[in-house]
Amino acid sequence: MLNTTPVMQRLIDAFATLPGIGRKSAARLAYYLVRQDVSATETLAQALLSARRAIKLCETCHNLCETSPCDFCTSPKRDDALLCVVESPQDLMAIETTREYHGRYHVLHGVISPLEGIGPRDLKIHELLVRLQQGAFREIILATNPSIEGEATALYIKNLVITAGLRVSRIASGLPMGSQLEFADKVTLGRSLLDRRALS
Amino acid sequence: MLNTTPVMQRLIDAFATLPGIGRKSAARLAYYLVRQDVSATETLAQALLSARRAIKLCETCHNLCETSPCDFCTSPKRDDALLCVVESPQDLMAIETTREYHGRYHVLHGVISPLEGIGPRDLKIHELLVRLQQGAFREIILATNPSIEGEATALYIKNLVITAGLRVSRIASGLPMGSQLEFADKVTLGRSLLDRRALS
Repeated sequence: MLNTTPVMQRLIDAFATLPGIGRKSAARLAYYLVRQDVSATETLAQALLSARRAIKLCETCHNLCETSPCDFCTSPKRDDALLCVVESPQDLMAIETTREYHGRYHVLHGVISPLEGIGPRDLKIHELLVRLQQGAFREIILATNPSIEGEATALYIKNLVITAGLRVSRIASGLPMGSQLEFADKVTLGRSLLDRRALS
Repeated sequence: MLNTTPVMQRLIDAFATLPGIGRKSAARLAYYLVRQDVSATETLAQALLSARRAIKLCETCHNLCETSPCDFCTSPKRDDALLCVVESPQDLMAIETTREYHGRYHVLHGVISPLEGIGPRDLKIHELLVRLQQGAFREIILATNPSIEGEATALYIKNLVITAGLRVSRIASGLPMGSQLEFADKVTLGRSLLDRRALS
Protein backbone atom coordinates (compact mmCIF):
# COMPACT_ATOMS: atom_id res chain seq x y z
CA MET A 1 0.00 0.00 0.00
CA LEU A 2 1.27 3.38 -0.92
CA ASN A 3 0.71 6.73 0.67
CA THR A 4 0.07 5.87 4.24
CA THR A 5 2.11 7.43 7.02
CA PRO A 6 5.25 5.63 8.31
CA VAL A 7 3.70 4.96 11.70
CA MET A 8 0.59 3.44 10.11
CA GLN A 9 2.79 1.40 7.78
CA ARG A 10 4.66 -0.05 10.76
CA LEU A 11 1.36 -1.05 12.38
CA ILE A 12 0.09 -2.63 9.15
CA ASP A 13 3.42 -4.47 8.75
CA ALA A 14 3.21 -5.75 12.32
CA PHE A 15 -0.35 -7.04 11.84
CA ALA A 16 0.59 -8.62 8.51
CA THR A 17 3.17 -10.89 10.20
CA LEU A 18 0.36 -12.67 12.07
CA PRO A 19 -0.92 -15.97 10.68
CA GLY A 20 -3.99 -15.71 8.46
CA ILE A 21 -3.76 -11.92 8.19
CA GLY A 22 -2.83 -10.56 4.76
CA ARG A 23 -1.98 -7.00 3.72
CA LYS A 24 -5.61 -5.96 3.24
CA SER A 25 -6.81 -7.38 6.56
CA ALA A 26 -3.82 -5.83 8.30
CA ALA A 27 -4.69 -2.42 6.85
CA ARG A 28 -8.33 -2.83 7.88
CA LEU A 29 -7.33 -3.66 11.46
CA ALA A 30 -4.91 -0.73 11.63
CA TYR A 31 -7.47 1.75 10.26
CA TYR A 32 -10.09 0.37 12.61
CA LEU A 33 -7.89 0.72 15.69
CA VAL A 34 -6.65 4.26 15.11
CA ARG A 35 -10.26 5.40 14.89
CA GLN A 36 -11.33 3.79 18.15
CA ASP A 37 -10.89 5.07 21.68
CA VAL A 38 -7.28 5.21 22.87
CA SER A 39 -8.28 2.75 25.59
CA ALA A 40 -9.11 0.01 23.04
CA THR A 41 -5.58 0.14 21.65
CA GLU A 42 -4.04 0.28 25.10
CA THR A 43 -6.07 -2.72 26.24
CA LEU A 44 -4.83 -4.75 23.27
CA ALA A 45 -1.21 -3.62 23.64
CA GLN A 46 -1.28 -4.33 27.37
CA ALA A 47 -2.89 -7.75 26.86
CA LEU A 48 -0.19 -8.59 24.30
CA LEU A 49 2.70 -7.61 26.54
CA SER A 50 1.37 -9.20 29.71
CA ALA A 51 0.41 -12.44 27.96
CA ARG A 52 3.82 -12.72 26.31
CA ARG A 53 5.59 -12.06 29.60
CA ALA A 54 3.41 -14.24 31.83
CA ILE A 55 2.95 -17.27 29.61
CA LYS A 56 5.57 -20.02 29.68
CA LEU A 57 5.69 -23.75 29.01
CA CYS A 58 4.85 -26.11 31.87
CA GLU A 59 8.02 -28.05 32.74
CA THR A 60 6.02 -31.27 32.98
CA CYS A 61 3.40 -31.34 30.21
CA HIS A 62 4.72 -28.43 28.09
CA ASN A 63 1.31 -26.79 27.90
CA LEU A 64 1.20 -23.00 28.04
CA CYS A 65 0.71 -21.81 31.61
CA GLU A 66 1.34 -18.96 34.03
CA THR A 67 2.77 -21.11 36.82
CA SER A 68 4.86 -24.20 36.12
CA PRO A 69 3.97 -27.01 36.72
CA CYS A 70 0.49 -26.16 35.49
CA ASP A 71 -2.91 -26.91 37.02
CA PHE A 72 -3.39 -29.95 34.79
CA CYS A 73 -0.18 -31.48 36.16
CA THR A 74 -0.73 -30.61 39.83
CA SER A 75 -4.49 -31.12 40.22
CA PRO A 76 -5.10 -33.99 42.66
CA LYS A 77 -8.45 -34.64 40.98
CA ARG A 78 -6.91 -35.91 37.74
CA ASP A 79 -6.01 -39.54 37.02
CA ASP A 80 -2.23 -40.10 37.29
CA ALA A 81 -2.43 -43.33 35.28
CA LEU A 82 -3.80 -41.75 32.09
CA LEU A 83 -1.73 -39.63 29.71
CA CYS A 84 -3.13 -37.90 26.64
CA VAL A 85 -0.59 -36.79 24.00
CA VAL A 86 -1.67 -33.81 21.88
CA GLU A 87 -0.05 -31.70 19.17
CA SER A 88 -0.76 -28.27 20.59
CA PRO A 89 -2.18 -26.33 23.56
CA GLN A 90 -5.25 -25.58 21.41
CA ASP A 91 -5.87 -29.32 21.00
CA LEU A 92 -5.57 -29.75 24.76
CA MET A 93 -8.19 -27.06 25.24
CA ALA A 94 -10.46 -28.71 22.67
CA ILE A 95 -10.25 -31.99 24.59
CA GLU A 96 -10.93 -30.20 27.89
CA THR A 97 -14.11 -28.68 26.49
CA THR A 98 -15.52 -32.21 25.95
CA ARG A 99 -15.32 -32.89 29.73
CA GLU A 100 -14.75 -36.56 28.81
CA TYR A 101 -11.11 -36.75 29.88
CA HIS A 102 -9.70 -36.43 33.37
CA GLY A 103 -6.12 -37.69 33.09
CA ARG A 104 -2.82 -35.87 32.52
CA TYR A 105 -1.59 -34.30 29.29
CA HIS A 106 1.57 -34.07 27.22
CA VAL A 107 1.92 -31.42 24.52
CA LEU A 108 4.26 -32.29 21.60
CA HIS A 109 4.27 -28.80 20.03
CA GLY A 110 3.94 -30.09 16.50
CA VAL A 111 4.03 -33.29 14.47
CA ILE A 112 6.72 -35.08 12.53
CA SER A 113 6.73 -33.54 9.06
CA PRO A 114 9.74 -34.28 6.85
CA LEU A 115 8.46 -31.85 4.19
CA GLU A 116 8.66 -29.00 6.68
CA GLY A 117 11.91 -30.31 8.14
CA ILE A 118 10.33 -31.19 11.49
CA GLY A 119 11.76 -34.37 12.97
CA PRO A 120 11.15 -36.18 16.30
CA ARG A 121 13.87 -34.10 17.95
CA ASP A 122 11.96 -30.88 17.28
CA LEU A 123 9.03 -32.18 19.34
CA LYS A 124 8.66 -32.93 23.05
CA ILE A 125 9.04 -36.69 22.40
CA HIS A 126 12.20 -37.18 24.46
CA GLU A 127 10.43 -35.45 27.36
CA LEU A 128 7.50 -37.83 26.87
CA LEU A 129 9.77 -40.88 27.15
CA VAL A 130 11.32 -39.51 30.34
CA ARG A 131 7.84 -38.95 31.83
CA LEU A 132 6.78 -42.47 30.93
CA GLN A 133 9.84 -43.90 32.67
CA GLN A 134 9.29 -41.81 35.79
CA GLY A 135 5.49 -41.97 36.03
CA ALA A 136 3.17 -44.90 36.59
CA PHE A 137 0.96 -44.59 33.55
CA ARG A 138 -1.47 -47.36 32.70
CA GLU A 139 -2.61 -45.94 29.35
CA ILE A 140 -1.31 -43.43 26.88
CA ILE A 141 -3.86 -41.93 24.47
CA LEU A 142 -2.34 -40.62 21.25
CA ALA A 143 -4.58 -37.69 20.32
CA THR A 144 -2.65 -36.18 17.42
CA ASN A 145 -4.81 -35.06 14.49
CA PRO A 146 -6.16 -37.70 12.07
CA SER A 147 -3.99 -36.18 9.31
CA ILE A 148 -1.10 -37.89 7.52
CA GLU A 149 1.47 -36.25 9.80
CA GLY A 150 -0.64 -36.82 12.91
CA GLU A 151 -1.11 -40.52 12.10
CA ALA A 152 2.60 -40.94 11.36
CA THR A 153 3.56 -39.21 14.61
CA ALA A 154 1.15 -41.41 16.59
CA LEU A 155 2.63 -44.53 14.96
CA TYR A 156 6.17 -43.32 15.64
CA ILE A 157 5.42 -42.71 19.32
CA LYS A 158 3.55 -46.01 19.64
CA ASN A 159 6.64 -47.91 18.43
CA LEU A 160 8.83 -46.05 20.92
CA VAL A 161 6.68 -46.43 24.00
CA ILE A 162 5.08 -49.82 23.60
CA THR A 163 6.02 -52.01 26.56
CA ALA A 164 4.34 -54.71 28.57
CA GLY A 165 1.74 -53.27 30.89
CA LEU A 166 1.24 -49.97 29.06
CA ARG A 167 -1.87 -49.65 26.96
CA VAL A 168 -1.36 -47.39 23.93
CA SER A 169 -4.55 -46.12 22.29
CA ARG A 170 -5.52 -43.78 19.49
CA ILE A 171 -8.56 -41.47 19.42
CA ALA A 172 -11.35 -42.84 17.20
CA SER A 173 -11.83 -41.69 13.61
CA GLY A 174 -15.19 -41.99 11.87
CA LEU A 175 -18.26 -40.03 10.91
CA PRO A 176 -18.74 -36.79 12.85
CA MET A 177 -21.81 -36.91 15.11
CA GLY A 178 -24.87 -35.48 13.35
CA SER A 179 -23.37 -35.90 9.88
CA GLN A 180 -24.83 -37.87 6.98
CA LEU A 181 -23.30 -40.93 5.28
CA GLU A 182 -24.35 -39.58 1.90
CA PHE A 183 -22.04 -36.58 2.22
CA ALA A 184 -19.13 -38.20 4.08
CA ASP A 185 -15.78 -38.47 2.30
CA LYS A 186 -14.88 -42.05 1.39
CA VAL A 187 -11.78 -42.25 3.59
CA THR A 188 -13.75 -41.27 6.70
CA LEU A 189 -16.64 -43.57 5.80
CA GLY A 190 -14.19 -46.41 5.10
CA ARG A 191 -12.56 -45.83 8.48
CA SER A 192 -15.91 -45.82 10.26
CA LEU A 193 -16.63 -49.26 8.73
CA LEU A 194 -13.21 -50.69 9.60
CA ASP A 195 -13.40 -49.38 13.16
CA ARG A 196 -17.01 -50.45 13.74
CA ARG A 197 -17.74 -51.41 17.32
CA ALA A 198 -19.92 -54.17 18.72
CA LEU A 199 -23.13 -52.97 20.34
CA SER A 200 -23.82 -56.08 22.38
CA MET B 1 -13.13 -21.34 25.31
CA LEU B 2 -12.58 -22.99 28.63
CA ASN B 3 -9.43 -23.75 30.52
CA THR B 4 -7.08 -21.13 29.27
CA THR B 5 -5.25 -18.87 31.71
CA PRO B 6 -6.74 -15.46 32.63
CA VAL B 7 -3.96 -13.54 30.91
CA MET B 8 -4.43 -15.55 27.70
CA GLN B 9 -8.17 -15.04 27.94
CA ARG B 10 -7.69 -11.28 28.14
CA LEU B 11 -5.52 -11.36 25.02
CA ILE B 12 -8.04 -13.52 23.15
CA ASP B 13 -10.85 -11.18 24.23
CA ALA B 14 -8.87 -8.15 23.04
CA PHE B 15 -8.22 -9.70 19.63
CA ALA B 16 -11.85 -10.79 19.33
CA THR B 17 -13.03 -7.17 19.51
CA LEU B 18 -11.32 -6.44 16.18
CA PRO B 19 -13.42 -6.47 13.01
CA GLY B 20 -13.41 -9.76 11.10
CA ILE B 21 -11.75 -11.67 13.94
CA GLY B 22 -13.92 -14.25 15.70
CA ARG B 23 -13.21 -16.27 18.84
CA LYS B 24 -11.31 -19.00 17.00
CA SER B 25 -9.11 -16.62 15.02
CA ALA B 26 -8.47 -14.60 18.15
CA ALA B 27 -7.32 -17.72 19.99
CA ARG B 28 -5.10 -18.71 17.07
CA LEU B 29 -3.44 -15.27 17.04
CA ALA B 30 -2.93 -15.32 20.81
CA TYR B 31 -1.41 -18.81 20.79
CA TYR B 32 0.79 -17.87 17.87
CA LEU B 33 2.13 -14.73 19.53
CA VAL B 34 2.96 -16.19 22.92
CA ARG B 35 5.10 -18.81 21.17
CA GLN B 36 7.09 -16.27 19.12
CA ASP B 37 10.06 -14.22 20.21
CA VAL B 38 9.28 -11.56 22.82
CA SER B 39 10.42 -8.97 20.26
CA ALA B 40 7.56 -9.86 17.88
CA THR B 41 4.97 -9.06 20.54
CA GLU B 42 6.79 -5.92 21.60
CA THR B 43 6.98 -4.71 17.99
CA LEU B 44 3.23 -5.15 17.58
CA ALA B 45 2.38 -3.56 20.94
CA GLN B 46 4.71 -0.63 20.23
CA ALA B 47 3.32 -0.17 16.71
CA LEU B 48 -0.21 -0.12 18.15
CA LEU B 49 0.54 2.47 20.81
CA SER B 50 2.59 4.76 18.61
CA ALA B 51 0.11 4.62 15.75
CA ARG B 52 -2.81 5.38 18.02
CA ARG B 53 -0.95 8.29 19.63
CA ALA B 54 0.52 9.76 16.45
CA ILE B 55 -2.41 9.45 14.09
CA LYS B 56 -5.01 12.22 14.00
CA LEU B 57 -7.46 13.63 11.49
CA CYS B 58 -6.27 16.31 9.10
CA GLU B 59 -8.14 19.53 9.93
CA THR B 60 -8.71 20.21 6.24
CA CYS B 61 -9.49 16.92 4.47
CA HIS B 62 -10.11 14.72 7.55
CA ASN B 63 -7.80 12.01 6.28
CA LEU B 64 -5.66 10.23 8.88
CA CYS B 65 -2.27 11.90 9.22
CA GLU B 66 0.63 12.53 11.55
CA THR B 67 0.82 16.27 10.92
CA SER B 68 -2.24 18.38 10.25
CA PRO B 69 -2.86 19.71 7.61
CA CYS B 70 -1.67 16.58 5.81
CA ASP B 71 0.62 16.22 2.80
CA PHE B 72 -2.33 15.88 0.41
CA CYS B 73 -3.65 19.27 1.54
CA THR B 74 -0.32 21.11 1.57
CA SER B 75 1.46 19.66 -1.46
CA PRO B 76 1.97 22.42 -4.03
CA LYS B 77 1.99 19.78 -6.80
CA ARG B 78 -1.68 18.95 -6.43
CA ASP B 79 -4.52 20.66 -8.29
CA ASP B 80 -6.40 23.13 -6.04
CA ALA B 81 -9.41 23.16 -8.34
CA LEU B 82 -10.22 19.44 -8.05
CA LEU B 83 -11.80 17.86 -4.99
CA CYS B 84 -12.41 14.14 -4.60
CA VAL B 85 -14.89 13.09 -1.90
CA VAL B 86 -14.36 9.59 -0.47
CA GLU B 87 -15.94 7.54 2.29
CA SER B 88 -12.79 6.49 4.13
CA PRO B 89 -9.00 6.90 4.35
CA GLN B 90 -8.70 3.41 2.82
CA ASP B 91 -10.65 4.59 -0.24
CA LEU B 92 -8.35 7.60 -0.51
CA MET B 93 -5.36 5.27 -0.50
CA ALA B 94 -6.98 3.06 -3.14
CA ILE B 95 -7.42 6.09 -5.41
CA GLU B 96 -3.84 7.18 -4.81
CA THR B 97 -2.53 3.79 -5.92
CA THR B 98 -4.11 4.38 -9.37
CA ARG B 99 -1.87 7.46 -9.89
CA GLU B 100 -4.72 8.88 -12.00
CA TYR B 101 -5.76 11.64 -9.62
CA HIS B 102 -3.76 14.67 -8.55
CA GLY B 103 -6.30 16.96 -6.88
CA ARG B 104 -7.30 17.42 -3.24
CA TYR B 105 -9.37 15.06 -1.10
CA HIS B 106 -12.20 15.17 1.40
CA VAL B 107 -12.91 12.19 3.64
CA LEU B 108 -16.52 11.80 4.82
CA HIS B 109 -15.84 9.02 7.36
CA GLY B 110 -18.87 6.98 6.40
CA VAL B 111 -22.02 7.15 4.32
CA ILE B 112 -25.60 8.07 5.08
CA SER B 113 -27.25 4.91 6.33
CA PRO B 114 -30.63 5.30 8.07
CA LEU B 115 -30.65 1.60 8.98
CA GLU B 116 -27.49 2.07 11.01
CA GLY B 117 -28.65 5.42 12.33
CA ILE B 118 -26.00 7.36 10.41
CA GLY B 119 -27.26 10.70 9.12
CA PRO B 120 -25.56 13.58 7.27
CA ARG B 121 -24.57 15.18 10.59
CA ASP B 122 -22.48 12.15 11.51
CA LEU B 123 -20.30 12.66 8.42
CA LYS B 124 -17.90 15.44 7.43
CA ILE B 125 -20.50 17.00 5.10
CA HIS B 126 -20.77 20.35 6.90
CA GLU B 127 -16.96 20.61 6.73
CA LEU B 128 -17.18 19.87 2.98
CA LEU B 129 -19.63 22.73 2.44
CA VAL B 130 -17.37 25.12 4.36
CA ARG B 131 -14.41 24.05 2.20
CA LEU B 132 -16.38 24.56 -1.00
CA GLN B 133 -17.32 28.11 0.11
CA GLN B 134 -13.75 28.99 1.03
CA GLY B 135 -11.90 27.24 -1.81
CA ALA B 136 -11.92 27.79 -5.54
CA PHE B 137 -12.91 24.36 -6.73
CA ARG B 138 -13.83 23.80 -10.36
CA GLU B 139 -14.92 20.19 -10.01
CA ILE B 140 -15.97 17.92 -7.20
CA ILE B 141 -15.72 14.18 -7.84
CA LEU B 142 -18.05 12.08 -5.68
CA ALA B 143 -16.11 8.84 -5.17
CA THR B 144 -18.30 7.10 -2.61
CA ASN B 145 -18.79 3.37 -3.20
CA PRO B 146 -21.26 2.24 -5.88
CA SER B 147 -23.44 0.73 -3.14
CA ILE B 148 -26.97 1.81 -2.21
CA GLU B 149 -25.69 3.98 0.65
CA GLY B 150 -22.78 5.32 -1.40
CA GLU B 151 -25.07 6.28 -4.28
CA ALA B 152 -27.56 7.92 -1.91
CA THR B 153 -24.79 9.87 -0.18
CA ALA B 154 -23.41 11.05 -3.53
CA LEU B 155 -26.89 12.19 -4.59
CA TYR B 156 -27.43 13.96 -1.27
CA ILE B 157 -24.13 15.84 -1.56
CA LYS B 158 -24.77 16.68 -5.21
CA ASN B 159 -28.06 18.37 -4.30
CA LEU B 160 -26.36 20.37 -1.56
CA VAL B 161 -23.34 21.60 -3.49
CA ILE B 162 -24.63 22.10 -6.98
CA THR B 163 -24.11 25.73 -7.98
CA ALA B 164 -23.31 27.55 -11.17
CA GLY B 165 -19.69 27.11 -12.13
CA LEU B 166 -19.04 23.96 -10.07
CA ARG B 167 -18.93 20.68 -11.96
CA VAL B 168 -20.13 17.74 -9.87
CA SER B 169 -19.15 14.30 -11.16
CA ARG B 170 -19.45 10.71 -10.06
CA ILE B 171 -16.88 7.93 -10.61
CA ALA B 172 -17.87 5.56 -13.44
CA SER B 173 -19.58 2.25 -12.78
CA GLY B 174 -19.43 -0.62 -15.26
CA LEU B 175 -17.66 -3.84 -16.01
CA PRO B 176 -14.34 -4.31 -14.19
CA MET B 177 -11.36 -4.28 -16.57
CA GLY B 178 -10.45 -7.82 -17.62
CA SER B 179 -13.86 -9.25 -16.68
CA GLN B 180 -16.30 -11.09 -18.95
CA LEU B 181 -19.82 -9.99 -19.92
CA GLU B 182 -21.04 -13.55 -19.51
CA PHE B 183 -20.30 -13.57 -15.81
CA ALA B 184 -21.17 -9.96 -14.98
CA ASP B 185 -24.12 -9.29 -12.68
CA LYS B 186 -27.07 -7.72 -14.48
CA VAL B 187 -27.04 -4.45 -12.55
CA THR B 188 -23.40 -3.81 -13.44
CA LEU B 189 -23.90 -4.83 -17.06
CA GLY B 190 -27.01 -2.66 -17.28
CA ARG B 191 -25.08 0.29 -15.88
CA SER B 192 -22.24 -0.24 -18.36
CA LEU B 193 -24.79 -0.03 -21.19
CA LEU B 194 -26.51 3.07 -19.81
CA ASP B 195 -23.19 4.83 -19.22
CA ARG B 196 -21.67 3.83 -22.58
CA ARG B 197 -19.28 6.42 -23.96
CA ALA B 198 -18.71 7.57 -27.51
CA LEU B 199 -15.44 6.43 -29.04
CA SER B 200 -15.28 8.93 -31.86
